[in-house]
Amino acid sequence: MAEWKAKVAVPEQLLVPLTVPNVHLFGPGPANPSMRTYNASALPLLGHLHPEFCKIMDETKAGLKYVFQTNNDYTLAITGAGHAAMEASIMNLVERGERILVCVNGLWGSRAREIAGRQGCDVRVLVKAPGGYHTYAEIEQGLKEHKPSVLFLVHSESSSGIRQPLDGIGALCHKHNCLIIVDTVASLGGTPFLTDEWNLDCVYSGSQKCLGAPPGIAPITFSPRAIYHHTGAINLVYALRESLAQIAEEGLENTWKRHHNTIEHLWAGIEKMGLRMFVKDKALRLPTVTSILIPEGLPDWKAVPNYLMKKHKVELVGGIGPTVGKVWRVGFMGHNSYTENVDMFLRLLKEALDVVKGRPKSQL
Amino acid sequence: MAEWKAKVAVPEQLLVPLTVPNVHLFGPGPANPSMRTYNASALPLLGHLHPEFCKIMDETKAGLKYVFQTNNDYTLAITGAGHAAMEASIMNLVERGERILVCVNGLWGSRAREIAGRQGCDVRVLVKAPGGYHTYAEIEQGLKEHKPSVLFLVHSESSSGIRQPLDGIGALCHKHNCLIIVDTVASLGGTPFLTDEWNLDCVYSGSQKCLGAPPGIAPITFSPRAIYHHTGAINLVYALRESLAQIAEEGLENTWKRHHNTIEHLWAGIEKMGLRMFVKDKALRLPTVTSILIPEGLPDWKAVPNYLMKKHKVELVGGIGPTVGKVWRVGFMGHNSYTENVDMFLRLLKEALDVVKGRPKSQL
Repeated sequence: MAEWKAKVAVPEQLLVPLTVPNVHLFGPGPANPSMRTYNASALPLLGHLHPEFCKIMDETKAGLKYVFQTNNDYTLAITGAGHAAMEASIMNLVERGERILVCVNGLWGSRAREIAGRQGCDVRVLVKAPGGYHTYAEIEQGLKEHKPSVLFLVHSESSSGIRQPLDGIGALCHKHNCLIIVDTVASLGGTPFLTDEWNLDCVYSGSQKCLGAPPGIAPITFSPRAIYHHTGAINLVYALRESLAQIAEEGLENTWKRHHNTIEHLWAGIEKMGLRMFVKDKALRLPTVTSILIPEGLPDWKAVPNYLMKKHKVELVGGIGPTVGKVWRVGFMGHNSYTENVDMFLRLLKEALDVVKGRPKSQL
Repeated sequence: MAEWKAKVAVPEQLLVPLTVPNVHLFGPGPANPSMRTYNASALPLLGHLHPEFCKIMDETKAGLKYVFQTNNDYTLAITGAGHAAMEASIMNLVERGERILVCVNGLWGSRAREIAGRQGCDVRVLVKAPGGYHTYAEIEQGLKEHKPSVLFLVHSESSSGIRQPLDGIGALCHKHNCLIIVDTVASLGGTPFLTDEWNLDCVYSGSQKCLGAPPGIAPITFSPRAIYHHTGAINLVYALRESLAQIAEEGLENTWKRHHNTIEHLWAGIEKMGLRMFVKDKALRLPTVTSILIPEGLPDWKAVPNYLMKKHKVELVGGIGPTVGKVWRVGFMGHNSYTENVDMFLRLLKEALDVVKGRPKSQL
């Protein structure tokens, strides 16, 4: 066995025990899962074709149909991030060379445009500034002008905190012989969403936001299209199943209400502190991820998130893309969406602002 | 809030508590993780950009470089199954219209051929019957004839149990201006494998086999090529990190030896029972997944796996594709690769054969 000599040495850092801090994940996601969900992810592994696991997949599918509010048979969880679901949605609905109209009003629309381009689609774009949304009239005009096969729309543009209105858009697309894909990564489970009622053809989400499961498994639903087989992420399915079970027990309407109540409580508290929101119209704000305008006169906007993380292990994040330096983004999703968390956050945010304002820049 | 009425009702089956049996996963994978790995997957979630998680990713990367035996900087774990890594390997190394030569000797080569075709590659194929492998001379002839940009080779064809020899193949490919991709889903960690020493350009594996982590995260290494960013599967990274830490503590050579010793013990026991292996030459057998020829005279080959699962919660699976009805496949990988497990398996297999042989078909 002379040839059985490893050439790359044992990595020293793997011989140090694994430690993980407890952090309050109040950013745009991931959000903290419940203990019940964590425990589920440590249950014994099963084969991906075992009948016991098939039953758990069926239960998870039923839970996904419930949170999507759909009767679509092709409702499943993809092994991968929300990004993988975005790819799958476009890959399955748009053929190479076919036309897709992508509504861009922030990072996620931009990413969909890029993916569609790489897949060889004929990509047309409707662009709005971050914080803006696409009106019914604008979408109608876009459909008439570009005659796309598919429309791509982001319901929860977490880069700005805007919630895209969807009233009548599904029917409008069908009138123009166009299918519709909707991204709900940062909203599904946190606000009313009715896939079938709204005539949507493909909707996908992430597991790690309002559903309260760990990341790595992405819910998606199709009005009939095809899928394929691999070793599913068994333990993540357990975790997702338990997250969905908690929503089923609470009742979806109550989950929606809890997210809305929690965020209204946040908005009121933020305004009471003299801060303002990036999205002015409440009705257009995501009830999950909120963009707070960074107040003028701060020596360094990063000092506040840094202080919160360092001192209190609380996450608050900055903007992304065009909103960098303009906003902080705070999220209360899934198991984090409780007013007690908001109260704690508001207290600590005030403390952070006081500390940062009172200090010279050199001490931040 | 009149419109806040869910239309799809609460799924009853989600209101029943989740239960998962303990099963001995002795099939071609997934394999049972250790308790330490399970526990890691239930540690608190962190943000995918948090410094504490970046450190864990660095540790995991170091562990992956160790098991791959490479100094490649582009060594990472993809959120997804081994199938996703197969796609990523071809997508990143072969341009649309470029030529790839796929060596097919079972299911996984066939799948690579299909993926490459769908990606628009110019696909050429070298085919061997299941249980066969590709010789140096055949590969050399294929490279001369087809002049591909990339060669695809399966190291661990778990559908037949064959281990593809790799001596000199990497250098041969480079001599012919060709890159080489190697699939090690069912072998990495279980048998000597030296990515750099063997001049391989892209090697990928699965987490759920010899590495002993849950499925859903796929190790891959590239001699310099590009990657991108999404919300990684945090808790699966914890689990993978802990699996790799256990290999680092044991020492990779010892892990290889343990897999080989375990499987030699199995082969000896199988032969002692009068059964024979599908791959006759020991040197060509995978030390992870073994294909056992189904003995003649059995009323129903499925009765044995069914008995083992029903009575003892032990997994034994049939063939796949062309080997269906010809072989049973048994695997001892990762945390399952111990001679005690083999002894238990052999005892129960004998019991199952006695029961099945002794019963009329109507009672099976």
